[in-house]
Amino acid sequence: MKAFDFFQNTKVVFGRGKVDLVGEIASRFGKKCLLVTTPSNQALHQIYHRVIDILENAGMQVTHFDGVTPNPTTDDISRGTEMAKSSQANLIIGLGGGSSMDAAKAIAVEATHEGSCWDYLFYKKQPSEKTLPVVAISTTSGTGSHVTQVAVVTNSKARDKSALYNSLLYPRVSIIDPELMISIPSFVTATTGFDVLCHAFESMLHPNCGAYVELLSREAIRIVAEHLPKVLDQPTCVSSRSAMAYADTLAGICIANAGVTLPHGMGMAIGGMYPHVAHGQALAIVYPACTAFTCNTAVDQSAFLSRVLDNEVCRIDNIEAASKAPKVITDFLKKINLYKKLSDVGVPKSELGDLAKQSMVLPDYKNNPRVASLNDIRHLVEAAY
Amino acid sequence: MKAFDFFQNTKVVFGRGKVDLVGEIASRFGKKCLLVTTPSNQALHQIYHRVIDILENAGMQVTHFDGVTPNPTTDDISRGTEMAKSSQANLIIGLGGGSSMDAAKAIAVEATHEGSCWDYLFYKKQPSEKTLPVVAISTTSGTGSHVTQVAVVTNSKARDKSALYNSLLYPRVSIIDPELMISIPSFVTATTGFDVLCHAFESMLHPNCGAYVELLSREAIRIVAEHLPKVLDQPTCVSSRSAMAYADTLAGICIANAGVTLPHGMGMAIGGMYPHVAHGQALAIVYPACTAFTCNTAVDQSAFLSRVLDNEVCRIDNIEAASKAPKVITDFLKKINLYKKLSDVGVPKSELGDLAKQSMVLPDYKNNPRVASLNDIRHLVEAAY
Repeated sequence: MKAFDFFQNTKVVFGRGKVDLVGEIASRFGKKCLLVTTPSNQALHQIYHRVIDILENAGMQVTHFDGVTPNPTTDDISRGTEMAKSSQANLIIGLGGGSSMDAAKAIAVEATHEGSCWDYLFYKKQPSEKTLPVVAISTTSGTGSHVTQVAVVTNSKARDKSALYNSLLYPRVSIIDPELMISIPSFVTATTGFDVLCHAFESMLHPNCGAYVELLSREAIRIVAEHLPKVLDQPTCVSSRSAMAYADTLAGICIANAGVTLPHGMGMAIGGMYPHVAHGQALAIVYPACTAFTCNTAVDQSAFLSRVLDNEVCRIDNIEAASKAPKVITDFLKKINLYKKLSDVGVPKSELGDLAKQSMVLPDYKNNPRVASLNDIRHLVEAAY
Repeated sequence: MKAFDFFQNTKVVFGRGKVDLVGEIASRFGKKCLLVTTPSNQALHQIYHRVIDILENAGMQVTHFDGVTPNPTTDDISRGTEMAKSSQANLIIGLGGGSSMDAAKAIAVEATHEGSCWDYLFYKKQPSEKTLPVVAISTTSGTGSHVTQVAVVTNSKARDKSALYNSLLYPRVSIIDPELMISIPSFVTATTGFDVLCHAFESMLHPNCGAYVELLSREAIRIVAEHLPKVLDQPTCVSSRSAMAYADTLAGICIANAGVTLPHGMGMAIGGMYPHVAHGQALAIVYPACTAFTCNTAVDQSAFLSRVLDNEVCRIDNIEAASKAPKVITDFLKKINLYKKLSDVGVPKSELGDLAKQSMVLPDYKNNPRVASLNDIRHLVEAAY
């Protein structure tokens, strides 16, 4: 058996109605909290007020920072940090999708350290134990951020996207209440749900994948294959929403202990250059080409993916099953309405060379079982065009 | 999906040769450590010296308490505590099986708190953050203690066995190095290995079992079914030792988040009244009767157990498969040489009534899917006689 390390210290509180426990949970960390969210809209208004009411009923003093933008910027973080400091928050609560939870983590660092959160990126100096505790309440099933030590932030001036990465950023407690997810619009359900599959599959491909991560990632892929189409068909089905929220949790634990590979590197580049393209949509665009590039090098994992997504593949051997992965993933993307090309989302053909270069900025591509050269990636973006 | 909580904050370091990292790992917690073990013997001598050398080469000052007895007593803990205090240890390292690791946890509490570890049992006042950090190095595949928050101790005066149970007792780091396990004698391999299966199966039966625990426990059972007979056949096979060590880790995480049920309650009673009966042997003695008592109430779990242990059962429906569990587990116990009766291990027939009563001292029996009355348990011990 391959050697592996494993660490995940978030207390997971999972189930319908569990958001009602947030007052009791938060008050263990102090009396004052900063609630971090995106701006309110009709669907979110109710959730925000419910959470604030529960916190206040538990005797908490709540300051609400609702200025998180999608792909939160260092400016967002600084404004949240100001509010955390002036309210003397003992605790940061991230309520929402990945943007809100990542912003909460970055504020937890910036509010307790010199300088900006940008000074504490994964390759720079590391935050200390002074980092404020974070409680996460996820309202989507996609980013896994509620169980990771990562906070993705964008530098407002440089338009550069990078990440804080430190075990101190694991949320102390994560509340995963599938009832909060029943009003997620169908495109967001599809893109975040497909991201779960990508987290799990790429974790299986990652060199740090050990037996534990593999167990969790296989289960996450099985669940997405079954429940993502179901929940798109019946958005209010709490049972399928629960399954997706659970798969998101498993896949998040996987990326916290292994990581993502080539498709995420390319997907992040698309998101960076074309911010109107949702993260899960960007992944969907590159997945068929990336899977074709990798399937013969990662036979067991690709065969597993093919078999889970297509029962017919169960009858053939591993090598043949692996080779079917690009076709099988394409069919799955069609089923969940995410099958698109770069040309469909307004990427100019003239910029494909730049996009290929940008795909190598993050080190993710180096963790792919078959490592792509710039020329390989150029072919991949062309295939995805 | 059923609601669940999950928490496990031990850093798991798994793999051949990983014990070499103990110096680097331990020195993160300070310069002085107490190494807690059972007395040396031929097989252990080498391991103890290897660990001490690695620690000293990393600049650690090591005090070695080698006075742990099987089923460690409060007297053992007090003697270890004296050494921890006089050496001003910053860290307690438990090296060995469950007894050594549990003793390390109890010393970590007693060395930092008023009174004895016995004052901090699960139903009494709880230890504080002052509790010293524990690093565990497991040398058996059985107790799961390296990933649990439990420390079982026996009161020397009262001959009463109970447990500390607090999240502060999770080892900060656990090193699981299968190479340390190749010299385990075959009876210990069988009894500790069967205990892994019991931890996993009883966790599935426990009311606190959620999807995550179920995923881990099913995998642990699959692994024990395949690798315990193999490792008994080839004790030096590192691959099967690794698989068993991994299954032990999964099953330990399961009991930390769910727990054990009726068979463990009865097994603990046997161990308490007849200390010469190994824990895993005691479980083996009661398992056929307990499985017969429970299988029709826990159909899915019992059918799963039957199918994993006996391929032939795969072709029949769940209810019939569940009803085969007592026979299937009996066959498995015969295969691993643990099939015995109470009469085989010297339990006097006249004491069966007392044994039945003692089986209800721990609350485990209340967590069985079918809750046994005293009369039921009386029948169970008779069946196991």
